[in-house]
Amino acid sequence: MIEDLFQFLRFPSISADSKYRPEVDACAGWLTDRLHKIGLEARKIPTAGQPVVLAKSRRDPAKRTVLIYGHYDVQPVDPLDLWKTPPFEPNVRDEKIFARGATDNKGQIMAHILGVEETLKEKRELPVNVIFLIEGEEEIGSPSLEEFLKTYANELAADIIAISDTSMIAPGTPTFAYATRGILCLEIRLRGPAADLHSGLFGGSVANPATVLSELIAQLHDADGRVAIPGFYDRVKPIESWERELWAALPYDDRRWLATTGAPALAGEAGFNTLERVWARPTAEVNGIGGGYQGEGPKTIIPSRAFAKLSFRLVPDQEPTELRTIITKYLTKLCPHSLELEVLYQEQGKPYLVNPDSKFGEKAQRALKRTFQKPIAFVREGGSLPIIQSFKDVLGLDSLLLGLALPDCNAHSPNENFPIENFAAGIRLNRNLLEEIGAAA
Amino acid sequence: MIEDLFQFLRFPSISADSKYRPEVDACAGWLTDRLHKIGLEARKIPTAGQPVVLAKSRRDPAKRTVLIYGHYDVQPVDPLDLWKTPPFEPNVRDEKIFARGATDNKGQIMAHILGVEETLKEKRELPVNVIFLIEGEEEIGSPSLEEFLKTYANELAADIIAISDTSMIAPGTPTFAYATRGILCLEIRLRGPAADLHSGLFGGSVANPATVLSELIAQLHDADGRVAIPGFYDRVKPIESWERELWAALPYDDRRWLATTGAPALAGEAGFNTLERVWARPTAEVNGIGGGYQGEGPKTIIPSRAFAKLSFRLVPDQEPTELRTIITKYLTKLCPHSLELEVLYQEQGKPYLVNPDSKFGEKAQRALKRTFQKPIAFVREGGSLPIIQSFKDVLGLDSLLLGLALPDCNAHSPNENFPIENFAAGIRLNRNLLEEIGAAA
Repeated sequence: MIEDLFQFLRFPSISADSKYRPEVDACAGWLTDRLHKIGLEARKIPTAGQPVVLAKSRRDPAKRTVLIYGHYDVQPVDPLDLWKTPPFEPNVRDEKIFARGATDNKGQIMAHILGVEETLKEKRELPVNVIFLIEGEEEIGSPSLEEFLKTYANELAADIIAISDTSMIAPGTPTFAYATRGILCLEIRLRGPAADLHSGLFGGSVANPATVLSELIAQLHDADGRVAIPGFYDRVKPIESWERELWAALPYDDRRWLATTGAPALAGEAGFNTLERVWARPTAEVNGIGGGYQGEGPKTIIPSRAFAKLSFRLVPDQEPTELRTIITKYLTKLCPHSLELEVLYQEQGKPYLVNPDSKFGEKAQRALKRTFQKPIAFVREGGSLPIIQSFKDVLGLDSLLLGLALPDCNAHSPNENFPIENFAAGIRLNRNLLEEIGAAA
Repeated sequence: MIEDLFQFLRFPSISADSKYRPEVDACAGWLTDRLHKIGLEARKIPTAGQPVVLAKSRRDPAKRTVLIYGHYDVQPVDPLDLWKTPPFEPNVRDEKIFARGATDNKGQIMAHILGVEETLKEKRELPVNVIFLIEGEEEIGSPSLEEFLKTYANELAADIIAISDTSMIAPGTPTFAYATRGILCLEIRLRGPAADLHSGLFGGSVANPATVLSELIAQLHDADGRVAIPGFYDRVKPIESWERELWAALPYDDRRWLATTGAPALAGEAGFNTLERVWARPTAEVNGIGGGYQGEGPKTIIPSRAFAKLSFRLVPDQEPTELRTIITKYLTKLCPHSLELEVLYQEQGKPYLVNPDSKFGEKAQRALKRTFQKPIAFVREGGSLPIIQSFKDVLGLDSLLLGLALPDCNAHSPNENFPIENFAAGIRLNRNLLEEIGAAA
């Protein structure tokens, strides 16, 4: 089982960096073969971007159909020097599998594949029709998937979608996520002098792109940690009182959260606690900033250019396309004429919120209880799965978010890992979930 | 003549980056040989850092002594992709020599060396005793030179120092610089989470080092472009009315300055014109900024760290050591406890101001007039030569700043160049200067 996952993890399927395109494609090929091997009809289907892997059991019209969604692409790996072992050489330490993608999402989707394989081996048939839809562009915002959903809508007809790409609140605690944050990524670029200038000969006479970039970023927040862009909060839904109550009872404490981050202290928007800040409040983050001299020692120049990669996490009912315009206008107004500002639009996706007590929601709750033998934590998810809004819009389907990751799995960070225990639980969860969904009522 | 300079320029003698240490040393060795070859006693003398090259003519006690100072180290070369030809493969285009160091300072010091060589070849003796003091750490703030001056004070006894490491106001206009700005370089580093964090899972709950770094930088200036650090201007000398008058008459215009920078517009401290801003007002610049994801596309992380390289240009009578403390206190007070701030002290040097009509000042003026046949421009220098304050403090000597660079020579920038015409003028200037200083009265 683990060797299967190891093979999957060895592909450096980084979708954000075009130089890994052949490896992303090879990973899709391997995955298609793997799905074919367990007895499914499997195809690697080209898109404008990375291929989609689509695999289906033979369709029995008497059975319900479950679409299991996941992704085989992974985040970039830098800073590489912080990895204890190379990101694409998976290995086990302290009962955890370490590799880029171990938890996000190769480990979690592989648990579903192995669950289906076990059931087929034992029973020669599944309690439901299964469709695997595994894409290669989740980490860059799934730019090709909505088009794919439209083209293949008939083949993708199902009753419900199951996704394991979110977190458990604590080890062993079954976790049902009923909301995700949306996302909006922008890159801002400032151009000043035609080339780097000597800061003595010219310093004081031209605007410095790195300084002005900092001034723009400094105006993203007010002194209370609120986003200072006018209109940013206009559509934000307040947190319901039932949510506050459920969250207060969760096996969570700030000390452990702080230890997981390794930061000197927690910080955030005034008037909200940590879970509220992460699950139900929008953010504006700088993901990367750069400009001018990056080497050792001093170099006394005025940089020609500076850039910042920004991402905004959004909550229901914020609209990324609307905010993109609002943010661009705000930055453009702030930028002095002594510099040229360019705003590049990157990935974006809507936030999502669903009722956890729907018919299939209750079936998922039963599967979670059978798998973990513990009360379920009802949570929101701080991360984003923009595609679930597309599933709703294009296929008319709701998604069950049954995450298997832990907060310290280092998704998107160096030393990403996935506990073997969670991997095994994921296989059991898949079997229980398909059984529950297959059962009458 | 040019081939001599080309050999000198081929050494990548970058002092800021320790991996170039062998090349810096090799450059010093080549220079020592070259000075020996023209008939001087030349030594490469080790220091705690890069070696100093010291060369002397035989001392005639009846003659005055001129110490000619320069440096053989150069600035780093990135961004390398903006160079039209490789920085250490010198070549001539449009009557200009292109290479890193062409103007700053290899071309200018080589002009002095060749001037001395010509005089010796023609007349077999010099009108003055000459000492060449050519160091290898000017671009990193001359950390070893003050100690060197103290140790070799007797050998360095002279009447006056001549330095060609500043700019001419316009092509063909003899330029006498009577002041330089000082400098103070700091690097600030912010540490937040132990590693980069997923901006969805953790975004909103910890401070972002890149955001807070931007907030610190944004507070370096007020809305009028003045440095906002309390006490920063306390010791700044106002510009004298005779300076304003002289500068207003110089062959200078903003349009040409703007074209040289290639910036969309000029900008700076309210209430001052461009020359005043660059020559007589202090600055706070970001020379480099970095943190988080630097690659292609988005990567949704909260960076673990962020840094900025800052440099402050100082004017008489600002004190770098005092300001270092003031700036550190200011930044420390602004930084929230949710992040760790580290301030690294790098190079620093005092500003300098001298009377251009001293005895040797008038001799230099005569040499400039003979060389260029034009009225002299009296200017301040926006750049820094911290070592001239050390010359004054340790050796008790004033410095004549007789620059040969032009504003568009791209010192510290890609495509650094030195017009052949200026190189030739530098050789003539050396000969006239030594003659004038050698003459009675």
